[in-house]
Amino acid sequence: MTHEDYMRKALHYARLCGERGEIPVGCVIVRNGEIVSYGSNARQTHKNALKHAELVAIDRACRKLGGWRLWECDMYVTLEPCVMCAGAIINARIRNLYFGAYDSKAGCFGGLMNLNDHAFNHHPTVVGGILEDECSEVLKDFFKKLRSRNK
Amino acid sequence: MTHEDYMRKALHYARLCGERGEIPVGCVIVRNGEIVSYGSNARQTHKNALKHAELVAIDRACRKLGGWRLWECDMYVTLEPCVMCAGAIINARIRNLYFGAYDSKAGCFGGLMNLNDHAFNHHPTVVGGILEDECSEVLKDFFKKLRSRNK
Repeated sequence: MTHEDYMRKALHYARLCGERGEIPVGCVIVRNGEIVSYGSNARQTHKNALKHAELVAIDRACRKLGGWRLWECDMYVTLEPCVMCAGAIINARIRNLYFGAYDSKAGCFGGLMNLNDHAFNHHPTVVGGILEDECSEVLKDFFKKLRSRNK
Repeated sequence: MTHEDYMRKALHYARLCGERGEIPVGCVIVRNGEIVSYGSNARQTHKNALKHAELVAIDRACRKLGGWRLWECDMYVTLEPCVMCAGAIINARIRNLYFGAYDSKAGCFGGLMNLNDHAFNHHPTVVGGILEDECSEVLKDFFKKLRSRNK
């Protein structure tokens, strides 16, 4: 499978949570070519600040793989991670991070700031812009529908 | 109760998890003078990168208070938060953060870097150094015992 194939899986989870009224962000974690966990944004559903797609997926991966270090794992997420999720990616030692849309307001691997410019004890390799247009579109559509409903 | 009183509660949870072999970090969340949740580091116990004291306490507070915004809440934690926890504090809109010991290797409110220098959509008020000596001592003792055991 290619980077784009994995990102399409992440987009699937983004769309699913969008249908439940969540800001549509989806994520998969891959090890040795296999998807070992997934997550989608569930902040409203669970009324919980921690339920971003990335944290949901990291939590599942740690449970499944039985360790807090996800050394051999790569993450695909439709939106550039916020500071909490970027921090969790660092703490979990995720090897490669691939994201779709940049987030100039909150993204912490190039959008608003770049945590890789600081002396943390782990620096994931980061590639942004995978299926960028499609990932942006999912978010734009969501907010467009939200605005038209609130008129 | 004073800041020091709340920090003593956080120290209690730090010591408790230290006895279970976890790096001793403890935390309480306070609203209107009442402790609404607490957390201690459980990363080894749960083999999970997300189980830092602050995330455990934020998770409990969101569940208890039924919302993802902890606007009226203050956090007391024995060690300066790492980037993941600092990000969660920002995302949860924690009002005031009081921490004990500075962390020059990983702390993100003054130790290694300061997230409040960046344009996030929330900036908690941060006071470091509450019962600093006692909070540092708990950590130093833990690592001293660990080293002597590993000799």
